[in-house]
Amino acid sequence: MTMKLYGFWRSLATYRVRTALALKGVHTEDISINLLQGGQFSEEFKAVNPQSVVPALVIDDGPPLFQSMAILEYLEETYPQPALLPRDARGRARVRGLAQIAVADGHPIIAPRVRSYLETELHLDEAARNRWCAHWMGKALEAIEGHLANAPETGRFCHGDTPTMADICMASQVIGATNYFKCDTAGLPTVMRVFRACMAIDAFDRSQPLKQPDAPRNPAH
Amino acid sequence: MTMKLYGFWRSLATYRVRTALALKGVHTEDISINLLQGGQFSEEFKAVNPQSVVPALVIDDGPPLFQSMAILEYLEETYPQPALLPRDARGRARVRGLAQIAVADGHPIIAPRVRSYLETELHLDEAARNRWCAHWMGKALEAIEGHLANAPETGRFCHGDTPTMADICMASQVIGATNYFKCDTAGLPTVMRVFRACMAIDAFDRSQPLKQPDAPRNPAH
Repeated sequence: MTMKLYGFWRSLATYRVRTALALKGVHTEDISINLLQGGQFSEEFKAVNPQSVVPALVIDDGPPLFQSMAILEYLEETYPQPALLPRDARGRARVRGLAQIAVADGHPIIAPRVRSYLETELHLDEAARNRWCAHWMGKALEAIEGHLANAPETGRFCHGDTPTMADICMASQVIGATNYFKCDTAGLPTVMRVFRACMAIDAFDRSQPLKQPDAPRNPAH
Repeated sequence: MTMKLYGFWRSLATYRVRTALALKGVHTEDISINLLQGGQFSEEFKAVNPQSVVPALVIDDGPPLFQSMAILEYLEETYPQPALLPRDARGRARVRGLAQIAVADGHPIIAPRVRSYLETELHLDEAARNRWCAHWMGKALEAIEGHLANAPETGRFCHGDTPTMADICMASQVIGATNYFKCDTAGLPTVMRVFRACMAIDAFDRSQPLKQPDAPRNPAH
């Protein structure tokens, strides 16, 4: 079996899939689609994903899998160890709910296509665009903090003492908020404590955007 | 067992949960949180969901379930009939991927909190705000159309001939696009064909925003 992961070093959604693959010890051939140069709009990539977004996961000659959460669920079903969802239905609902706050309520609002609309249609300057991104990244993390702070289910990680999809998705959001948009994390003690626990795990750490082979050597670029 | 659904007639995320409950024949006590009057920010509702968004599902005295996709997955696990996910892992990945395009890539960008930011922080007038909403609602539906149009898995519904989570989430997006933002649907033949098949099902139809008891009698309001 061959698995090809179409992604980009900077993409937070690709980070999520990369981390799940690393945790489960699944090897992929990685194909870099340069989102900063419009590689997602090439006819070649549109044949893989007509939506022109990464990641996409192609297994053998099957149709490409798309959307990071759908791919995480697929990996969980086909590579169940280590489990990234708890065993009980309510626990799974909590983990998926936390994951969705990052994946649905936080990330899409600051995606490249939205930043591009802010620039070309609404004529926002770079400072205003960065405020927009920092605002929504921060809001999603505040929402996660609100759920984590006083819940008995919160442990060393978002849900108990082993990492789940919630940690993967939250970590992607923290990486974006702190690396790209310099968000203030002072009001996020639980989120940042769990994030540090995640980053102490090799699979989370080596999947980081700036540690990818297609990342620029100079992080300012 | 008692189930309380906190929602609002106009909320597309509530529509998704309401439709899944109706398809599965699960009864809930419905509690209306008036999003147009800021009911989501009351201390009472924040105790249910600190993120101040609907829907939230409370079962007996358990902690509230949040995020529509997490709730759909929970309902699928606890009320498996009729199944809203296909049996095979790749099929489930496709259905979840299509659902996520609506839930993550389309809807959050036009949520009330974003429209409020456009108005109060960016000073966009109503016409510009409506263009924003129509643009992003349309983009998500175009992405779904791109996936549905030529895929052999597409049937009477998004995936085969019975409704799945993909149909529920796509239907919520079409309802928002056509009822609230008057999007042009000319480029969406497959989406609209499937949407009509959905609306011929009582559970989809009676869950519609304007058919809820807390909806205004005059749809213009």
